[in-house]
Amino acid sequence: MTRRVAAIGEGSYAVEGVYILASGTVVGDKEAQGPLGHYFDVTWSPSGSSRSFEREERELLQRSQEIALAKARLDWPAVELVLGGDLLDQLVTTSFVGRAHGRPLLGMFAACATFTEALAVGSLLVAGGGPAVVLASAVSHHYAAERQFRYPVELGNQRYPTSSWTATAAGSSVLASAPGPIAVEAVTIGRVVDYGQKDPNDYGSAMAPAAVDTIHRHLRALGRTVEDYDAIFTGDLGEFGRRLALKLAQEELGEDWRARLDDCGRVLYDLQRQDVHNGASGAGCSAAVFGGYLSHQLTQGGWRRLLLAATGALLSPTTAQQGESIPSIAHAVSLRAERGGEAR
Amino acid sequence: MTRRVAAIGEGSYAVEGVYILASGTVVGDKEAQGPLGHYFDVTWSPSGSSRSFEREERELLQRSQEIALAKARLDWPAVELVLGGDLLDQLVTTSFVGRAHGRPLLGMFAACATFTEALAVGSLLVAGGGPAVVLASAVSHHYAAERQFRYPVELGNQRYPTSSWTATAAGSSVLASAPGPIAVEAVTIGRVVDYGQKDPNDYGSAMAPAAVDTIHRHLRALGRTVEDYDAIFTGDLGEFGRRLALKLAQEELGEDWRARLDDCGRVLYDLQRQDVHNGASGAGCSAAVFGGYLSHQLTQGGWRRLLLAATGALLSPTTAQQGESIPSIAHAVSLRAERGGEAR
Repeated sequence: MTRRVAAIGEGSYAVEGVYILASGTVVGDKEAQGPLGHYFDVTWSPSGSSRSFEREERELLQRSQEIALAKARLDWPAVELVLGGDLLDQLVTTSFVGRAHGRPLLGMFAACATFTEALAVGSLLVAGGGPAVVLASAVSHHYAAERQFRYPVELGNQRYPTSSWTATAAGSSVLASAPGPIAVEAVTIGRVVDYGQKDPNDYGSAMAPAAVDTIHRHLRALGRTVEDYDAIFTGDLGEFGRRLALKLAQEELGEDWRARLDDCGRVLYDLQRQDVHNGASGAGCSAAVFGGYLSHQLTQGGWRRLLLAATGALLSPTTAQQGESIPSIAHAVSLRAERGGEAR
Repeated sequence: MTRRVAAIGEGSYAVEGVYILASGTVVGDKEAQGPLGHYFDVTWSPSGSSRSFEREERELLQRSQEIALAKARLDWPAVELVLGGDLLDQLVTTSFVGRAHGRPLLGMFAACATFTEALAVGSLLVAGGGPAVVLASAVSHHYAAERQFRYPVELGNQRYPTSSWTATAAGSSVLASAPGPIAVEAVTIGRVVDYGQKDPNDYGSAMAPAAVDTIHRHLRALGRTVEDYDAIFTGDLGEFGRRLALKLAQEELGEDWRARLDDCGRVLYDLQRQDVHNGASGAGCSAAVFGGYLSHQLTQGGWRRLLLAATGALLSPTTAQQGESIPSIAHAVSLRAERGGEAR
């Protein structure tokens, strides 16, 4: 298999010889009860042995990595590089889990776009002739995120209609130069986009312009349209963010993306029944939705092409308190189903 | 110039066709008054127009990036990718500056090893045939770090003898496939090492084992010894951490590194005169010491080879409060002086 990288546009690279061998997903109870519940590998329940939400988050991540490796029939020593991140300050979940596996580790952060940042960089490294096997991961934990970013949940603060629910979820994917069921075709590294939105209870609207920017650049670099994909999934725009992205695509590009564009955060929960308002968010959301539902669609659901463009709101509690707007970013990865050796 | 990556050991890659064209450095008053003061491009003083330490940190980073580009005679549109990070929660400095330059951005985090993580990944991407010009950056700001990680400085808490002083410093380097004065020879991605040290006032001792692990793996992968380098500089071990690293190299490897091993955090300040105890730390420390002093040694000081192995303590205030030990990591980059076209 020839490994190759070619620059095809601003931040966009076509890659050859990179495949996703397998993915592992672990979700919490609420996520398991949503419409995608049966696509995930494991529903995780606190064992009681973890002494904190932060330790639970580590268990989620580690479990998802172990499942991905088991499905790819690989052991830890075969993993040349681990890439990924989480939402906790100083990426402590990723680092502490790195202590357990002991493999070379690259910590990455793009908020809820971290998973596609890791997938994109991992793909570029494998295609560039470096590591032959890498693991890309992202994780989030609802209660660990709540107490870091917001208020103690015991306060019972009312949530806004535009608020998203940080998912308790982890997803890990094994990228390799050896052929597998999903090929990586191209990646686009996002740039920071900020339309001036300042409301930390509405990430979807802040991130929608970044999603449109990256998807547009990615399609243009490849000379494709949205119709070339069975689906385009953004990260955590949720219901409101998707609406705004569709509006921006129509107004700024004159394109109708309604038939193709959906969002990981919008499909993880049943928005009517599960009281999550705008939908799901969190670095683990797109990682788990990709590793579970979307991978299934590519390998067994008849989809031929997927564009995954996770989105991240690059604020912190400090910048929100200082009255700053919310810079956002989206990193995109084009994926192609490989069946019966076709296109190899 | 042939661009090429070759795996040569666990997490270690030889690279060809990657050069550092120029670096930009900006430091605060205290850093400018240290023994390396005259090697830095700009001594930065608050203009008064910045309303917070966090905004000042952004100015430092942006300025260092602009200086690096000016020295390399490049404009922003020539930069295909920006890689880097900072110490603030959610990497807000890097992201907010990304809003200004608008170039494709990869947020990276390895605490005070972030600069060599960015250099290493940037080198692998350029050598792998992806982007031809990337910018690798890291920054830290003493007072922004103090109020995030420690106590309000107004409390006047006593500092420990083993405490380091977070440097106010930024460093940015332009990596490119076009020939330049410094060549990147090889990189080693670190793995998390934790010997169980729990004292958040002594990062140097926590990080020393990670530094020794990475340097040892790097040398072994290349078939070299410490004598093959004019100098090996770790990141922010400081005085105590360097002593421990020397001890570990002697006891675990039976090697005497005294004549070659020094540390960016140990040389940035005058330890006797500047009341900084163990020395400097912060993501900007190794970035600025490399871009200023160490680059000068390679381009004009007669050094032929440098091994830069910045070190990071991967804890957070939360993990420290929860009684966890301090996982650490070091990423290494081998650099070679290119003179009069030799070895091209």
